Amino acid sequence: MPPRLGEAFERVQSDIDSAFDAFLPVPDDSRARLVEAMRYAAIGAGKRMRPLLLVATSELFGVNRNAAINAGCAVEAIHAYSLIHDDLPCMDDDAMRHGKPSVHKAFDDATAVLAGDCLHALAFDILTQLDTSADPFVRSELVATLARASGHDGMAGGQMMDIVSQEENYDLRQITRLQQLKTGALLAASVEMGAVLGRVPPEGRAHLRAYARDIGLAFQIADDLLDVEGDEAKAGKALRKDEEQGKQTFVTLMGVEQARAQATMLVEQAGRHLSSYGEDARLLVELADFVVKRDH
Amino acid sequence: MPPRLGEAFERVQSDIDSAFDAFLPVPDDSRARLVEAMRYAAIGAGKRMRPLLLVATSELFGVNRNAAINAGCAVEAIHAYSLIHDDLPCMDDDAMRHGKPSVHKAFDDATAVLAGDCLHALAFDILTQLDTSADPFVRSELVATLARASGHDGMAGGQMMDIVSQEENYDLRQITRLQQLKTGALLAASVEMGAVLGRVPPEGRAHLRAYARDIGLAFQIADDLLDVEGDEAKAGKALRKDEEQGKQTFVTLMGVEQARAQATMLVEQAGRHLSSYGEDARLLVELADFVVKRDH
Repeated sequence: MPPRLGEAFERVQSDIDSAFDAFLPVPDDSRARLVEAMRYAAIGAGKRMRPLLLVATSELFGVNRNAAINAGCAVEAIHAYSLIHDDLPCMDDDAMRHGKPSVHKAFDDATAVLAGDCLHALAFDILTQLDTSADPFVRSELVATLARASGHDGMAGGQMMDIVSQEENYDLRQITRLQQLKTGALLAASVEMGAVLGRVPPEGRAHLRAYARDIGLAFQIADDLLDVEGDEAKAGKALRKDEEQGKQTFVTLMGVEQARAQATMLVEQAGRHLSSYGEDARLLVELADFVVKRDH
Repeated sequence: MPPRLGEAFERVQSDIDSAFDAFLPVPDDSRARLVEAMRYAAIGAGKRMRPLLLVATSELFGVNRNAAINAGCAVEAIHAYSLIHDDLPCMDDDAMRHGKPSVHKAFDDATAVLAGDCLHALAFDILTQLDTSADPFVRSELVATLARASGHDGMAGGQMMDIVSQEENYDLRQITRLQQLKTGALLAASVEMGAVLGRVPPEGRAHLRAYARDIGLAFQIADDLLDVEGDEAKAGKALRKDEEQGKQTFVTLMGVEQARAQATMLVEQAGRHLSSYGEDARLLVELADFVVKRDH
């Protein structure tokens, strides 16, 4: 990882942990268990790819870092809730996440359902607390972007398609659509929210949207490759699940070599979408590259 | 039920059904099952007590009915998601809801988790689409009110206390706190959101908040009484569960007679909080009365 990107990741990771810590004081009553579970899921875990995407985009437009971090914290709260629910026995039934027992294993199923629900609500709570003094429409647009990207027309809709895909044989077009929703929507929302904070009007966001779409697909192809070739210790979760479940992925449909070539092509294309921003967009370009080169 | 209240209920029920129908077209892909589950939970079910509270409050301040119905639809989406998740086998494990199989029985557990999550996101999506032309801060305040009332400091926090209460022996103070969160927070948010739409500043909402607090507690006492004395066919769900689970409730702690007297007292008190609104508040006063006299 280039030093500048490594530093940016570390700084965002530390800022997001601090933000969650401040948003989630443990109450002195029987809700303590619930808030402990939320903290367990939200603090000290994950790469914070989405917050970094949001912060790096917002930096192109000189956005106050504190506002960007809090908006990033909201996106990460949605991501964290979705992992808690996806790991449940009735969903993907995953016992490990980020190298430690998943929330329903460390606590119990009921607490996991509720902790997910509460992180979901927290995301929107955080967005309404954002200091966007100059423009009151910004908060509402951030809420709209995040709600749309996470609901049935976004992330959760993609998760439903993923569940159904185990019964049906999806082709490449369907897998692409599934992944654009399941992982792409929230990655794209991160970039979009950075632009919203930067007061970029919708018609000025075309290059950024094209960048986000390309890295979203590249991210998922890389994930499918990691599921086949990755190291479970580094991934911090069970791998080889796609094959076990007989699921169609970019790798089963394209083969390892073509999938890798496709991911590389997408990353190069993503970088070109940002050429008009010049050197300012270096972090976003490095981040696109990292998306396919990461080992977890 | 007084004719005016009966009419108001019917009109709100019909308007909320139409709103959900419009917000939830069934997509032509494998997300169809997910959206069908959302529609199954959200359309044609429930008394719509929360939307009616919101609409009746907003009418005190001459709010456009369409905006109030959509905001009520958002509150009801939160209520519907919470029932889906509460009914799950790992939570309260209820097979019936509103006189029909609960969502995880009619569909499956994974679809129920996702349908709940998607109704949750839909609530905030709806609020950002609201036409509140004159005042852009209104949408953000509605989102803040609803997110706060439904998360770990509100409804879901109360549900956690409810789960823990089966292991611990709560006293009346703890049961009151639990219920203020579990059911009271969302009922109070409904009244509050009506006032927000009516551009009532926070300092002008004291009477309305006192009314909401009183009917929230009266509602829960009435629920506990129904669990002991009610008719399962009318309730459309299993009753006598509190006793089976050995749970402390207002009724176990106060006895049937004192619980009934307390509920009646709260309703009278709720009505007095609205005296300054005179005849305009008749619907809200009748609604308070209905809260303890309902048979389901």
